[in-house]
Amino acid sequence: MDFLNNYLIYLIPVFGLIGILVMAIKAAWVTKQNAGDGDMATLAGYIADGAMAFLRAEWKILGGFVAVAGILLAWSGTTVATSSPVIAISFVIGAFLSAFAGYLGMRIATKANVRTTQAARTSLAQALKVSFTGGTVMGLGVAGLAIIGLGSLFIVFYQVYVVKVTGSTVNGEAMAKALDVLAGFSLGAESIALFARVGGGIYTKAADVGADLVGKVEAGIPEDDVRNPATIADNVGDNVGDVAGMGADLFGSYVATMLATMVLGREIVSHDNFGGIAPVLLPMVIAGLGLIFSIVGAAMVKIKSETDSVQNALNIGNWASIVLTAIATYFVVQWMLPSGDFHMVRDEVNGVVKATVIPFTKNGVFGAIVVGLVVGTLMSIITEYYTAMGKRPVLSIIRQSSTGHATNIIGGLSVGMESTVLPILVLASGIYGSYYFAGLYGVAIAAAGMMATTAMQLAIDAFGPIADNAGGIAEMSRLPEEVRHRTDNLDAVGNTTAATGKGFAIASAALTSLALFAAFVGVAGIEHIDIYKADVLAGLFVGGMIPFIFSALCISAVGRAAMAMVEEVRRQFREIPGIMEYKAKPEYEKCVAISTKASIREMVAPGLIALITPVIIGFAFGPEVLGGLLAGVTVSGVLMGIFQSNAGGAWDNAKKSFEKGCDINGEIFYKKSEPHKASVTGDTVGDPFKDTSGPSMNILIKLMSIVSLVIAPHLNSHQTATAARVQKEMNKQPMSIHMVVKAEKSV
Amino acid sequence: MDFLNNYLIYLIPVFGLIGILVMAIKAAWVTKQNAGDGDMATLAGYIADGAMAFLRAEWKILGGFVAVAGILLAWSGTTVATSSPVIAISFVIGAFLSAFAGYLGMRIATKANVRTTQAARTSLAQALKVSFTGGTVMGLGVAGLAIIGLGSLFIVFYQVYVVKVTGSTVNGEAMAKALDVLAGFSLGAESIALFARVGGGIYTKAADVGADLVGKVEAGIPEDDVRNPATIADNVGDNVGDVAGMGADLFGSYVATMLATMVLGREIVSHDNFGGIAPVLLPMVIAGLGLIFSIVGAAMVKIKSETDSVQNALNIGNWASIVLTAIATYFVVQWMLPSGDFHMVRDEVNGVVKATVIPFTKNGVFGAIVVGLVVGTLMSIITEYYTAMGKRPVLSIIRQSSTGHATNIIGGLSVGMESTVLPILVLASGIYGSYYFAGLYGVAIAAAGMMATTAMQLAIDAFGPIADNAGGIAEMSRLPEEVRHRTDNLDAVGNTTAATGKGFAIASAALTSLALFAAFVGVAGIEHIDIYKADVLAGLFVGGMIPFIFSALCISAVGRAAMAMVEEVRRQFREIPGIMEYKAKPEYEKCVAISTKASIREMVAPGLIALITPVIIGFAFGPEVLGGLLAGVTVSGVLMGIFQSNAGGAWDNAKKSFEKGCDINGEIFYKKSEPHKASVTGDTVGDPFKDTSGPSMNILIKLMSIVSLVIAPHLNSHQTATAARVQKEMNKQPMSIHMVVKAEKSV
Repeated sequence: MDFLNNYLIYLIPVFGLIGILVMAIKAAWVTKQNAGDGDMATLAGYIADGAMAFLRAEWKILGGFVAVAGILLAWSGTTVATSSPVIAISFVIGAFLSAFAGYLGMRIATKANVRTTQAARTSLAQALKVSFTGGTVMGLGVAGLAIIGLGSLFIVFYQVYVVKVTGSTVNGEAMAKALDVLAGFSLGAESIALFARVGGGIYTKAADVGADLVGKVEAGIPEDDVRNPATIADNVGDNVGDVAGMGADLFGSYVATMLATMVLGREIVSHDNFGGIAPVLLPMVIAGLGLIFSIVGAAMVKIKSETDSVQNALNIGNWASIVLTAIATYFVVQWMLPSGDFHMVRDEVNGVVKATVIPFTKNGVFGAIVVGLVVGTLMSIITEYYTAMGKRPVLSIIRQSSTGHATNIIGGLSVGMESTVLPILVLASGIYGSYYFAGLYGVAIAAAGMMATTAMQLAIDAFGPIADNAGGIAEMSRLPEEVRHRTDNLDAVGNTTAATGKGFAIASAALTSLALFAAFVGVAGIEHIDIYKADVLAGLFVGGMIPFIFSALCISAVGRAAMAMVEEVRRQFREIPGIMEYKAKPEYEKCVAISTKASIREMVAPGLIALITPVIIGFAFGPEVLGGLLAGVTVSGVLMGIFQSNAGGAWDNAKKSFEKGCDINGEIFYKKSEPHKASVTGDTVGDPFKDTSGPSMNILIKLMSIVSLVIAPHLNSHQTATAARVQKEMNKQPMSIHMVVKAEKSV
Repeated sequence: MDFLNNYLIYLIPVFGLIGILVMAIKAAWVTKQNAGDGDMATLAGYIADGAMAFLRAEWKILGGFVAVAGILLAWSGTTVATSSPVIAISFVIGAFLSAFAGYLGMRIATKANVRTTQAARTSLAQALKVSFTGGTVMGLGVAGLAIIGLGSLFIVFYQVYVVKVTGSTVNGEAMAKALDVLAGFSLGAESIALFARVGGGIYTKAADVGADLVGKVEAGIPEDDVRNPATIADNVGDNVGDVAGMGADLFGSYVATMLATMVLGREIVSHDNFGGIAPVLLPMVIAGLGLIFSIVGAAMVKIKSETDSVQNALNIGNWASIVLTAIATYFVVQWMLPSGDFHMVRDEVNGVVKATVIPFTKNGVFGAIVVGLVVGTLMSIITEYYTAMGKRPVLSIIRQSSTGHATNIIGGLSVGMESTVLPILVLASGIYGSYYFAGLYGVAIAAAGMMATTAMQLAIDAFGPIADNAGGIAEMSRLPEEVRHRTDNLDAVGNTTAATGKGFAIASAALTSLALFAAFVGVAGIEHIDIYKADVLAGLFVGGMIPFIFSALCISAVGRAAMAMVEEVRRQFREIPGIMEYKAKPEYEKCVAISTKASIREMVAPGLIALITPVIIGFAFGPEVLGGLLAGVTVSGVLMGIFQSNAGGAWDNAKKSFEKGCDINGEIFYKKSEPHKASVTGDTVGDPFKDTSGPSMNILIKLMSIVSLVIAPHLNSHQTATAARVQKEMNKQPMSIHMVVKAEKSV
């Protein structure tokens, strides 16, 4: 115990190493599964090549970006005492690991897909095993790399900036500097995540929408038909968007939550055990435990017969990992945190605690963690309700499809808007509750608790697109019916997990941003963010607007790219004779190139908005106005994220419902019926909503908060514009105030 | 001058009386115009009856609401010293006058429509004269009643609560009480406005969408065809929605801006002229001048030949009234306000002005007014750009219509989202600028300046639906081509003015809410609204969500009502033989009844949300959390308002563009082409966006602010939830803080 007590900090990366080790074993297992033959192998090859082509193109751009941003960071690091040029190094490492995690996930996904198809020829159980193991590899890779990276960097910076420096207190300026430098890691990870999410999202939907509009609607050939020139791009999209994009997204959230909690933890005065930094270590330890129990949970995901429920299998594994982690967390909290009350340093004025401060206890901290788990679970349940087949929201859209395209759209939009109510109430209660239990540290640790089982969440998320791909390959290589049937079964489950996963991702992003927000306020050293001040209120307005323009850019990018795709596909059908008779092979690579180019080009503008706005506002108007901006971005970003993701999910399942046939006022409608056509319109509109702009909101709000946190020490000295102006005014007319006061008295 | 100086307060209602007088003369002129013959008269009769039927049904509900709310207000008025049961009386008066203004407008509109049709048989000039005079009657009625009502009530309350009470200072508690009671007037007006806007909006779009879906799309008969059973309801809708709804909306804004400015003006220590309350009187005086110059501007709106531009005629009148008002305002400000610096009472602590306060001057106040005028103008220009034919946004939607319904929708949604950027930047600068010039009083007076020419704005807004109706009547009574051509000319202009009017309405609503927000903070007696506090932040989230659920309710209400309408129209076509051959008359009243019932039923839920939420949050969590809620509602409401209104407007004009033919990549497409069909879908989706949920956002944000302002004195004593909890905690464990502080030192 005493050993642990002193060396816990060095144990943290070990958790990550275990994760990577297990990942390697599982990856090896997947690789040696039968990859099928002939067509299957070739098509899978196209998909893998397309995916890599995108990554290479993306990396070329991002490499340049990372270089430039790194240099700026190194330079700015030299300008203030509380920072250091070293921040550039952790930025580059964060960016690299995030990209690498995405790469790992995609490599395994593009292997697992075809092997799942092959496995589906024998049994559902085997197909699930292959696809879910593929997902697990992704999950463990992301979580493992994150913990190793953050853990080891922290060890280094802790040694360099705190231990080695004589007279530095464990939670004083020295530690602040260590954490500020560490923030670069999170910034790097989240920047890459944004580009991966937006780029991948544009890619996948441009291909998807393009393929559907010409293939399904015009040429009347089924989805994933090998004759459709865009079908490879479509399947590549599932990998670059849903796998690599989602992976980078959660890698970012995972790191950001830990970082924010550490920054706030620094301000908590703890006992001398664990080098006096128990509150700083706690989030990483919780993440480590979550990783281990994710491995346990993943091992429990299996079915025996064709009739077993895949969803149940996933739920069992998921719940096992969550519950086990919660229990273990309870004991860790009891062990690590001091007994008695504690509060944050910023809550005192010359050593005396402010009257409004509520001290909290170790039990409060655990309470906050539970709040985080509950919020995450409720968000997933609510999201599922609003997007699931057979539930009221989707049924209402189906009914409104009977009067045409327009009413279907109106139905979906109002479902999406309505679906913001419960999540926001849950989130608001979560903020209130976690704060009640453990103040700002509570809000952060709640997010950390929620993200603890990220490895498992991601395994479940990534399994969906792998199954989807497997189905695509089965369709393209025209395998027997029962194969497609098995992959469809997996795919259906994948759609549900995708929806719940989105709810989870939004909740985590929201809590993460708030934690970062709180950390920012502390580092920037401001007392309030008073929206009653005109300039802060103006910042709130501008912040609220950013998710709208960001979404507009994403959506219109998909629209433009899809139209380019449509024209290319039409051209190939026109100019390449024999495609329809399977005599000639379509030029898949042309479509892949269109999606790749478009997504790379279009991801730049939204990315820069997210990165540059906080810098401009922060330096021009000071930290308090920037705080207003962040609040605006977070509130409006969460709302737009939920609205767009759920509307898209509901439209999607309204359309899918017609495959089994929908009862509208007693009449049953199937595919190709008028109501079904209307539902296809809704689904197409929903595609960029749920897979491009919606999910990007998560990263937008996190990234802007991290940027603010990183520049906070530089703003520290600044005063707000108003304050500055007051100064000016007062120097200009020193008497004025005085005069008024006199005028005053006379009344 | 000395006389004016002392009796200015009594002059204010006189401005209103002049307005009403001129209105009466113009109304009489319209009434004695030729109302046409046979069919025309009958059809116009149906429309007038339908409109009145709606108003009666609406008043039945609202009568009950006003009674209940009035009793509650009277009761609550007795509970705090700073208020009085009398507030119930001004609430009832406000509600009555708002409803009466809507009634006046609709009466004249339903007379002017058919007379415009008749006039259009002779010349465009005459048709413009009749329709615009109708609009002017509405504008003068609204502004006149508002000034008379607010002005006289203020005189009474000023006498009762200030002058008659010995020892009461002009800007002390006594005046605060007078203004608190006066706030009831604004509350009454805005409540009615909300129900009128939402109810009218649902009515008009249910009828419009229903009529189009069956008439145009299924039966293939033109719009406003007398054979369509829903056509009367559709034309009634233009009156109850665009005329009565818009009238009540602007009546509310107009009153609310004056009130908010007066509440803030009370806190400014002025010289003894004008009874020492010049800053309180100023907004009403400015409104009075605006009314007079609106009469002048309206008189300048005329054309001579068929080829003259109607738009120019309107612009000339509009600009004349604005510029003249601005000039007059300059002199009034110079005359009324004291020279030297002044500031607000709340900006001092025991008689000493806070260091952060910037004193402002009379020139600053005029500067703020100019800012308001500029903001209003820019908002109108931007709105026009995003919704006008031939401009980039609408063209992009047209292009995206070529690939189908879905891409048309995606195009419109992204245009709507993009269109929030410039207005928000303008608004944010406006807030910043007006505050810079004259602090919080500046923000309020900027709104007041913007609303000064409300009479003229409304005349221009109301002329549109009158022309639209006139066209409908011409079509229904199958008058010669050139008649319809003339009314179409007016209608086209009406569509532009409707768009710009919406931009103006949103801008005014936003500034009004902020002014009310500032007033609320003062009355509630809170120092900050610190979004860095967890509970305030939670309030911000919940507030941000409300416009989403409010929009969802409005949109889905239209969807449901439209479907009921569709089924009724289908039934009549099926069961009443000979309709198509003009042999049998459709049962118009059945459709009117459907729209009426639906709109009355559906307007209740959103209305109650707006009214009750602030009360619950305010009393449960205290004024600061309520402040957070208001900020959230305002930001998200403004964004959703701009997004929905502009998307709807752009879709509408994209569809209209196909009438002249649209060039898409070199190919020209006309009506009935596939791209046109896609554009009709967009237009139908846009209908509830731009005429139901979009405009309702204005009233939502204003109403919630007013409710908060009214309950503010009651919250005054309350502490925020956090504070309360702290108290509890501290009593529970008096040692805790102390302990920690000790623990602190030891580090």
